[in-house]
Order: sequence, then C-alpha cells, then structure tokens
Amino acid sequence: MNRKMIYRILGNILIFEGLIMILPFLVSLIYREHTAIYFIITSMVALVIGYILANLKTENKHIYAKEGFIVVAISWIVVSLIGALPFYISGEIPSYVDAFFETVSGFTTTGSSILNNIEGLSKGMLFWRCFTHWIGGMGVLVFVLAFLPQSEGQNMFLMKAEVPGPVVGKLVSKVKMTARILYAIYAFLTALEVVFLLFGGMPLFDSIVHAFSTAGTGGYAIKNSSIAYYNSYYIDMVITAFMLLFGVNFNLYYLLMLKNVKQVFKSEELRWYILIVVAFTGIITVNTLGVYGNVAQSFRYSIFQVASVITTTGFATTDFGMWPMLSQILLLLLMVVGACAGSTGGGMKISRIMILIKSAKSSVKKMVSPRRVSTINVEGKPVDNQVLDFAYSYFVVYALIFFGSVLLLSFENLDIITTLTAPLTCLGNVGPGFGDLIGPVGNFASLSNFSKIVLSFDMLAGRLELFPMILLCYSIKDEISTLCKKTFKR
Amino acid sequence: MNRKMIYRILGNILIFEGLIMILPFLVSLIYREHTAIYFIITSMVALVIGYILANLKTENKHIYAKEGFIVVAISWIVVSLIGALPFYISGEIPSYVDAFFETVSGFTTTGSSILNNIEGLSKGMLFWRCFTHWIGGMGVLVFVLAFLPQSEGQNMFLMKAEVPGPVVGKLVSKVKMTARILYAIYAFLTALEVVFLLFGGMPLFDSIVHAFSTAGTGGYAIKNSSIAYYNSYYIDMVITAFMLLFGVNFNLYYLLMLKNVKQVFKSEELRWYILIVVAFTGIITVNTLGVYGNVAQSFRYSIFQVASVITTTGFATTDFGMWPMLSQILLLLLMVVGACAGSTGGGMKISRIMILIKSAKSSVKKMVSPRRVSTINVEGKPVDNQVLDFAYSYFVVYALIFFGSVLLLSFENLDIITTLTAPLTCLGNVGPGFGDLIGPVGNFASLSNFSKIVLSFDMLAGRLELFPMILLCYSIKDEISTLCKKTFKR
Repeated sequence: MNRKMIYRILGNILIFEGLIMILPFLVSLIYREHTAIYFIITSMVALVIGYILANLKTENKHIYAKEGFIVVAISWIVVSLIGALPFYISGEIPSYVDAFFETVSGFTTTGSSILNNIEGLSKGMLFWRCFTHWIGGMGVLVFVLAFLPQSEGQNMFLMKAEVPGPVVGKLVSKVKMTARILYAIYAFLTALEVVFLLFGGMPLFDSIVHAFSTAGTGGYAIKNSSIAYYNSYYIDMVITAFMLLFGVNFNLYYLLMLKNVKQVFKSEELRWYILIVVAFTGIITVNTLGVYGNVAQSFRYSIFQVASVITTTGFATTDFGMWPMLSQILLLLLMVVGACAGSTGGGMKISRIMILIKSAKSSVKKMVSPRRVSTINVEGKPVDNQVLDFAYSYFVVYALIFFGSVLLLSFENLDIITTLTAPLTCLGNVGPGFGDLIGPVGNFASLSNFSKIVLSFDMLAGRLELFPMILLCYSIKDEISTLCKKTFKR
Repeated sequence: MNRKMIYRILGNILIFEGLIMILPFLVSLIYREHTAIYFIITSMVALVIGYILANLKTENKHIYAKEGFIVVAISWIVVSLIGALPFYISGEIPSYVDAFFETVSGFTTTGSSILNNIEGLSKGMLFWRCFTHWIGGMGVLVFVLAFLPQSEGQNMFLMKAEVPGPVVGKLVSKVKMTARILYAIYAFLTALEVVFLLFGGMPLFDSIVHAFSTAGTGGYAIKNSSIAYYNSYYIDMVITAFMLLFGVNFNLYYLLMLKNVKQVFKSEELRWYILIVVAFTGIITVNTLGVYGNVAQSFRYSIFQVASVITTTGFATTDFGMWPMLSQILLLLLMVVGACAGSTGGGMKISRIMILIKSAKSSVKKMVSPRRVSTINVEGKPVDNQVLDFAYSYFVVYALIFFGSVLLLSFENLDIITTLTAPLTCLGNVGPGFGDLIGPVGNFASLSNFSKIVLSFDMLAGRLELFPMILLCYSIKDEISTLCKKTFKR
C-alpha cells in the first residue's frame, strides 16, 4: 500500500477543510458571536496538519483501487473528527462523541441529531452544521478533485469510491472537469432554492442554511420543530420540490444543460423515481385523510414526507409516527430504497434495486428454462456481470452491517423498534427512525456513546456505499495482525 | 405446459392424503370421539377426487422443471385446503380461513396457531394437527415419490422443488430409493424421541404428537402453555436435543449409516451450525441470568429457545419477549438464518448464508484486485455460478416477499412489531413472532382473514423455498392474460 500518497491526499483534504471553515467564521463575525474564535482555531489546526501531510516527499505517486477506497474512508473519518472540534471546544456540544456523531451525521447528510435544543446553538455553529451537509452531499473528495492537480487514473479511483450508485460514469472525459461541472450544477440549484425560499418570506440566514440541508439531502434544520416552524404551505412545497430535484442523478442535469431533453426522459431510473413518488404520495394522501381532515393538508404532509424520506433528507413537518401503519411501512420501504444513483441522496439507490429485481426475475425464468441465455438491461444497456456481482454483494454486505449494528445496539437494551430502525435510518443516511426515542419528534441524545459510535460507522458506511469502510476494517485487521506478529518475533 | 400430468400427480397426492387421514380417524376411534366421522368424510372426498385425477388419460407423460415447480406449489395448497376440512366441518375451528391457516401452518411446519384454547380440541384433531407437521417436514411429495412408480427424470424435478437448500443431491442414484432412505431415517429418529419422552413420564399420546412436531420442526403442542406445561428439565433437554438433531442435513445421517463418521464432521455447514448453537446459547445464558437467577435454569431456557428458533420449530417454554434486547435480537437473527439445508428446518438455511457471505467477501477482494480470479468453496467443493446466482436471487426474492407481505399486513393497522415480524416468522416457518400479539405467549387468532391468507402464502413460500409459489403466481398471471385476450377477441 502506498501510505505516503494516502497521507498526501489526506493532507490536501485537511487544507480544504481548513479553508471552508472560514465561512462559518465569517458568519460568526457578522453576528458578532465569540464563537468565531473556535472556527479559526480549528481552521489553523486543519491547515497545519494538512500542510505537513500534503508535503510529505514521495517518489511513487501511483495509487490503486485499494488506496482509493481507503483514503476515502480515512478522509471522511478525519474530516469529521476535525469538523467536530468547533462544537466541542466552544462547549456548545459538551461531549466530544456527541460532537463527532453530529458532524458525521452532517457530512454523511444523514441529519440525525443528538441535540435536544437546536435553537440553543450560536448562528455560526448552526451554519457550520448545515454547511457540512452541503459539502458532504456532493462529496468532500469530489470538491478537492475539482481543484487539485492530480493524475487522471487515481482521480477516477477516488471518484468511484465516493460517488453513489452501482455504475460511476464521467460526464466528460476528464475527472476534474466532471467534478467542476457537478459542483456548478449543485451550486446553481442551491442558489435557486435560496431565492425561492426568500420569496416565501423566510429570513436570508434561514433560507441559506435550509438550502444547504436540502441540497445535500441532509435534513438539519435550525428550529426545534424543523420546517414545521414556518408553517407555510408555500415553503413546504418549495422544499419538497427541491428535495426531489436533488434526488435526481446529476448526470441528467448535465444532459439538460446540453439541451438533450429527450435523453433525460428516456432514463429508466428517473421514470421509476417519478412513479414511486407519485404512487406513494397518492396512497399516503388517501391513507392519512383521517389524520388531516382534508385532501390539501393531507397531500401537503404526504408529499413532503415522501420526498424527505426517498431522498433521505429527513426534514420533518409532522410526526409520521402518528400515521396509519400502511403509511409508516411505505416510508420504511422508501428509507431502504433511497434516491437515484449519482444524486446527493442516500439509501440503496433505485438503479441498484432495479438491477437486483431484474436479475432475480431473470433467474426465476432461468430456473424454468435452464438453457436460456439472458442479459439484464438497465437504461437500455446490458448490465455486465461485474456490476451485477457488486450490486448483489452490496445487498449482502448491507444486510450484514445492518444485522451487526442491530446486535451491537441491542447491548443497550432499548425498545425493539429503536434497535431495529436506528441502524436502518443511519445506513440509509435518512435521519429520523421510528419509535418514541428516535422518531421524527425525537433525537439520538439519550443513546450511549458506544451506540453513537456504532451508528457513526453506519452513517459513514451508508454514505460511502459500504465498501470503503469495509476495506478500511480489513486493512486495520491486517495491520494489527502484522504488528502482533512483529511483536511476538522480538 | 403438460396440464394433464399435473392433474395426475395431484391426484396421486390426494389419494395419499386420503390414506394418511385414516390415522387420525383411528385415534378418534380409540378415544371414542364422534369426530372420527369427519376424518372419514374428508378421506373419502380426497380419495374420490384423487382417483378421478390420477386416472386422467394422457399420452405425453413428460414433465419439465416448470411443471415440477407448479405441481409442488399446487399440491401443497390443495393438500392444505382438504386437510383443513376436518377442523372446519367438525366445527372445532368455526372459520374455514382459520382452519386453512392452521393446516398450512401445520404442513409447512411453521406452527403459528389461530387457536386461543388448544386444549379445547378433540384428541383426533390434536393428532391430525401434529401429524401434518410430520408429513410436511420431510415433504408431501417426497413421501409420494418413495412409493409411486414414475420416471426418474420427473422425480428429480419434483424433489428439487420440495427439498430445502441451495443444492439438492441424491443420496443414491435413484430418487425413489433416496426418498425411502430419508423417510426411514426420519421415522427412526421420531420413534427414538417417543421412547425418550416416555422415559420422562410423558403420556404416550403426548409423546407421539410432540415427537411429530419436533421431527417436522413444526412446533404445535397440545397444551395451551406448550412444552412449559410438563415443567420438566429432562423433557426440555430431550426435546432440545431432538430439535437440534432434526435441524441437521439428513444426508449426514445417511453417511453415519454408512459408518463414514469422518466425512460427517468434515461438513462445513454442520460445523457452523454447532458453532452458532454453542455461541448463541452461551451468550443468551449469560444475558438472561438476571431473568432466571441461576445458570442451570438460564441455560435450560436459553438452549431450548436457541434450538427451537434456529431449527424453526417454535416450541416455547418461556416468554422470550421478557428477555433483554440482546437475547431477543439474537433470536431474531436465528429466525432469518434457519437450520441446515436438507433438514426439516426452515429459514434461509445456513449453507445459503455461507455461500452469500463467502461470495460477498470474494467480491470485496475483487474490488481491490480486479484481475483476481476467485472461486468460492463450500463443503470443499467450488460453488458453480448457477448455484450462486440462485442463492442471490433467493435472497432478493426473500426480501421482496418480506416487504410485500409487510405492506399488505400494514392495511390492518396493527403495531409495527407485529407487522414486521409476522411475515418474518411465517416466511422462516418458525412460529412465534415478536410483540404482545403474536409473541411466544400470543397467537394469530385476532388477525383479519386477509392477513391470514397473506401469511399462509408466506408460510408456503418459505417452506417451498420461494420459487414454486412465485412461478405459480406467474402462471396464474399468464393464464388470466390469455383468458382476457380470448374474451376480448370474441
């Protein structure tokens, strides 16, 4: 393994984190908050460590797939460890594990919180919290890739490890340009949402941070009652629309930019996505009529919650724990399914589910006529065996991590709904779970530190599509066993 | 599709059912119960319909894989429909849907019951109820295969569709002999259990029916408090031991018969099975110390429940809903895992889980070194691609049926634990679920007819390893669409 290159890349990412922390620093200054100092301290720490690591001398600049996965996993952990510092040293989140959980939840765009009183945070911290969503949504490394000079091959490895979905394609021939285009689309849509929210009478600060949270499909809000605080049909609809927009594969926006509208609507995944949203909203609207009394209100809460859960944003405007069981189960399903590949949303991704279902169907047919040669087509192209293989292993690894986490969480002896849905919501990067404790009106504050660390692992695993974290675990196991062998030899 | 052959095979199976119903008839006579008449009526119905179907004339006697799957699915449904008649016409189970659910639960060896007062049934009905477990455990068709003259090729199709596990091998070159050997081992072990139970002071009738329930890994008991009624350490241990024995691949017993002991302990699946039982029992014994006060009692209940759940028998001696969450989650895991392939137990089967985990591991390695050629070995033999493919599709179809059933069940607006664990326990053919309603001290009586039919489908799908039921659904869909086309043409 080329460790020096891992350190160098990590160094660059830390420099990047040090630089972006200037933004919450400025926000703190504007609001004349003393918390500004904590951002500067953290920024300095990140810049110094980053500078040292980035300038390590190495002759071999090549990295391979393994290093790509591992550097992505380590980067996300380190970025969260450093990103948690302002919360911790300012004392606004007194426990470091809590601050780490909150930051991981931010960067992974999960949006699960340990805060009982969100409104107690300073503006600077509120901004930083939502800004982590925005950065994490499109990807920490994708951002760095957009601006760092690095060889083409290794960039692709990094991008593959960070961008969600079963197949990662480049928009243009160069990874760097792809990353820049993605961020440009991302920034444009975010700005558009800010404008729409301002029109609805939402204050500027609130509009900006909520746009960050929507764009990253994160779900952090700045009021204890989340978006319900504004109690506005218009704002609910704007946020619904933008959540859905950020759940679409960004490649399609690039096609739109190229005015290739026909190609966009040919996308199988997009059609499934629209179909699911329409169908689920329809059913839930009817099913919750008894709760809200009229179609307009019932539609408002239904489509908001469907958009919030399928895109794994996790904003809440209502307590869906009070809904009829059918609606709750539909949301639970969406939690697992997730948004489109190549979007900022989490979950298993619609295209991956499409591949799995189509392949299972083809297997059933093969059972009947064993000599049949069958290929599976997704988006009009045959799915090659390796992609299929990875989709299957993803599904198995997902189940293994889920069961493993449930097992570790069960040590805490919570109720069974919390034990089962906490790992589910964290793996899917959704935010709220089910049950009184971690449901839409609850939070993760009362969990033990051990559970918070397990769930932080789940959030990272979910955001990075499982494999980087798994490979990191393997590497650590290997390192430890080599270390043990060395120690015993002496 | 060769329909006539499907009818003929179905006819033979009905004749078989008519004949075995003489046993509960005799039991009723011995106890001088008037219910004897209902068994004779049903037996006549089965024999007459069976005789007519079995003697349909057909020139083409060939069947293919598709017919094999479909005849298995239809047979199990029809056998349950007829098997439910004695309960219904005697009025001991006043609702036909309830009687059907109870019979499906019997034949599929699930053991979920709709009875609030089991002790209210007559001896004949109690016998029939447990006898369905015994027949269903090894397989209705396997029994018929053992005695019916049919060509070798089609027998293999039938056997493949009914015997659980990812790979079905024949013990000896002929299917008929294989089926006979299996049933001989099965009958011997059952008789052995009866003897052991008699030694513990259990009455003869009770010993026989409980041996049936253990052998089929079903779980029907004849007392409202199940096995806890006898309150005997010895009886608990005997049943534990036999549950575990019936969870082992029967091929291994055949190897034992051939005195090939070495080969038996080479079995990878057996070693995993033993390891899981030992480890889970150990952890649960420690974890439930607080509930039972001393190691002896805690061990007694832990190993009984581990054996009961991993073999998917579902006998209860204690309310595990009162256990600490860790122990409950471990049982939930076992519910999904299930017993060994080729045993009478249900669940996903240990060997299938082995294949999935090994393949996921190999995929992770492939991700790092894409050029790596890797084969997966199970039981020392490489797993061919088709077996792997089916194991994966099984997993996907399992998840789809699970979520589909949860969705259908959610219409009833029960609590979330019942909604989630009822399909799980039925698909795994376990018996009890979690929560107050369907937990070890509850039953399925209060569910709606619709939910009972959904869960009956799950039990059948679980017992027949999903694909026969899926193929039946496809065929029905095809038939309907052909019918529609014909109708519209006119």
